[in-house]
Amino acid sequence: MQSSSDRPIITLLTDFGSLYPAQMKGTILSRARNAILVDVAHDVPSQDVRAGAFALMTTVRHFPEGTIHLAVVDPGVGTDRLGLVAESGGHFFVGPDNGLLIPAARSMGSPEVWMIDPNFAEGAAPTFHGRDVFAPAAAMLASGARPEAFGPRVVPANLDFGKAERFKDRIEAEVIYVDGFGNLILNTDEIPWDHVEISGRKLKRVKTYAEAGGVEPLITIGSHEFAEIAVNGGSAKDIFGLSSGDRITLERGNCSE
Amino acid sequence: MQSSSDRPIITLLTDFGSLYPAQMKGTILSRARNAILVDVAHDVPSQDVRAGAFALMTTVRHFPEGTIHLAVVDPGVGTDRLGLVAESGGHFFVGPDNGLLIPAARSMGSPEVWMIDPNFAEGAAPTFHGRDVFAPAAAMLASGARPEAFGPRVVPANLDFGKAERFKDRIEAEVIYVDGFGNLILNTDEIPWDHVEISGRKLKRVKTYAEAGGVEPLITIGSHEFAEIAVNGGSAKDIFGLSSGDRITLERGNCSE
Amino acid sequence: MQSSSDRPIITLLTDFGSLYPAQMKGTILSRARNAILVDVAHDVPSQDVRAGAFALMTTVRHFPEGTIHLAVVDPGVGTDRLGLVAESGGHFFVGPDNGLLIPAARSMGSPEVWMIDPNFAEGAAPTFHGRDVFAPAAAMLASGARPEAFGPRVVPANLDFGKAERFKDRIEAEVIYVDGFGNLILNTDEIPWDHVEISGRKLKRVKTYAEAGGVEPLITIGSHEFAEIAVNGGSAKDIFGLSSGDRITLERGNCSE
Repeated sequence: MQSSSDRPIITLLTDFGSLYPAQMKGTILSRARNAILVDVAHDVPSQDVRAGAFALMTTVRHFPEGTIHLAVVDPGVGTDRLGLVAESGGHFFVGPDNGLLIPAARSMGSPEVWMIDPNFAEGAAPTFHGRDVFAPAAAMLASGARPEAFGPRVVPANLDFGKAERFKDRIEAEVIYVDGFGNLILNTDEIPWDHVEISGRKLKRVKTYAEAGGVEPLITIGSHEFAEIAVNGGSAKDIFGLSSGDRITLERGNCSE
Repeated sequence: MQSSSDRPIITLLTDFGSLYPAQMKGTILSRARNAILVDVAHDVPSQDVRAGAFALMTTVRHFPEGTIHLAVVDPGVGTDRLGLVAESGGHFFVGPDNGLLIPAARSMGSPEVWMIDPNFAEGAAPTFHGRDVFAPAAAMLASGARPEAFGPRVVPANLDFGKAERFKDRIEAEVIYVDGFGNLILNTDEIPWDHVEISGRKLKRVKTYAEAGGVEPLITIGSHEFAEIAVNGGSAKDIFGLSSGDRITLERGNCSE
Repeated sequence: MQSSSDRPIITLLTDFGSLYPAQMKGTILSRARNAILVDVAHDVPSQDVRAGAFALMTTVRHFPEGTIHLAVVDPGVGTDRLGLVAESGGHFFVGPDNGLLIPAARSMGSPEVWMIDPNFAEGAAPTFHGRDVFAPAAAMLASGARPEAFGPRVVPANLDFGKAERFKDRIEAEVIYVDGFGNLILNTDEIPWDHVEISGRKLKRVKTYAEAGGVEPLITIGSHEFAEIAVNGGSAKDIFGLSSGDRITLERGNCSE
């Protein structure tokens, strides 16, 4: 029993919306009734592995050691892409081998990764490994199985968010996530200037959303420790027309107030 | 005590969105604090009993014996329509007598059905039996009450999804559910041809979504074992402009590649 | 240990959408693994403290004594607004000092209110006190801490929904909440006439939604015991074009059927 408690926690992150996550939960509870199930998000943009990977990475550190993170954003379901079980920093990860788990696993330590033997779940629906492969695997971990029980060690597909490029008077970054407020999260953890310009709009660097007056765009280091563009009382996504994966240029702004 | 565990599972399916399901959960936990509550869906299209019935039917089999399924899509709330408790295949069902529970109950075995005595919950809000009648009934079942404690046996209102009609070169089917991906689920479990045409568009029959290239409509037998029209990276609902309840004609297609 | 059970219930209400509530839950479960977590709503309109206050008020009475209600709609996060712990009628409340908790706490009895010492959570992200201040405080209450452990008694910021003004042939009311059906909830608990007119449209006063024929606006005393304008099979929000905070005039209607 690897779990630090007789009530193992399983988090769930998918792009499935409603209904299908419940089928995964029924599958888990049929095999590990003591599990505590916690939804991370089921509204990851459809098949957006990078957005799912960011959401998972930013969440796992807030759960206790021994937590099992079950994540399924899986455009390759039913093909020969592998299923994975990973362990890192005392946390466990279950999901497809498309990079989804990797930033989260790396954020907790040095991941060890095992494949899930393709014969693990015979008769699995080729369109729903979340329910028929990954949920049973998570339930087995919750019941005390060790990751090496699922198959041999493998080198997983990689995924990272790159790193914004810093130049003298500008930063070339990428939007890695858009949250429910429409805040744009960028792949940089520093904002070197008090003011920046984006497409000719001036943004003030702040510590709290409330520092910006009216419906005014601002930039801050968010609670996930990445730069974040927000609009107090509005949506940065709508104002800048940007989505996950888009490039963005931050220019050094003047304090012309 | 009919439950196979001292932690009975109660699933919840409604068209209530947020807020109201929490009032149902508070009501249940006030009476059966050990219950494990699992949301199936609360975004069933408003008052769409058929869509709710499909969602419930496709979910219940993934839960263990003894599970109590509480489902409320209830356009007739406060009228003289009955409330029901049903038992089938070791599962329990609670909800209004409008057909909602029936396909799910039938999918698990031969349902036995009891009415909930109209005096069961005095002072129930006439617009919210989900909270004031069905949630307390589910909590009583979770605490070990037998279905016959609620009232006499009745013959419930029926609901079925019909069966698509198969002709030589076409199938006349109905859309019975549209899921969160915009996939269209049809009332047939067979696709006899490698290619079909719908309104002049060609669709390939596949086993996995990834077999279709680009943003291309496809047809498959989904994880719920019904035919399903999907668009890899897009929404079949938007492309075909169809909703739950709409008729659809599948024509035998040519393999003209 | 103030809790009536070794499984304390914590409800969560925010305007965070998905993802961020999971970070709060991980934080709670890291400190109070026995907690039963129940989502009330995470789709409160962004920064709409009044809508959040109504949603909370209408929900808390359905939970058992000892429940801890954690609510965060917090436009002032990171400023010098206080954090609060309140106790009323055996229920506990945790959240920002902006009025959010007050109607709910008042609805249960005579609230006692304590501030959370600003040094309670050192290193808290200035944009996410929900996770770094209020979730740990709720977990401490769940573990048996008394509210006075968090700081001295304070007089909290007030919030109420006003009271509709009744004149001879009209009522001047305010929309205090729009639910997921698009129903408009008003700050009055009486509808003195069988028919009312709103902007020239006639509405029948009913006891159940089903009493109104077709897609017809109606007015009723809803399950929360406030007047509610609904449209059977449609959305009153769309038909009347009203949102939370808007003023509305109900005129005495004639029964001209």
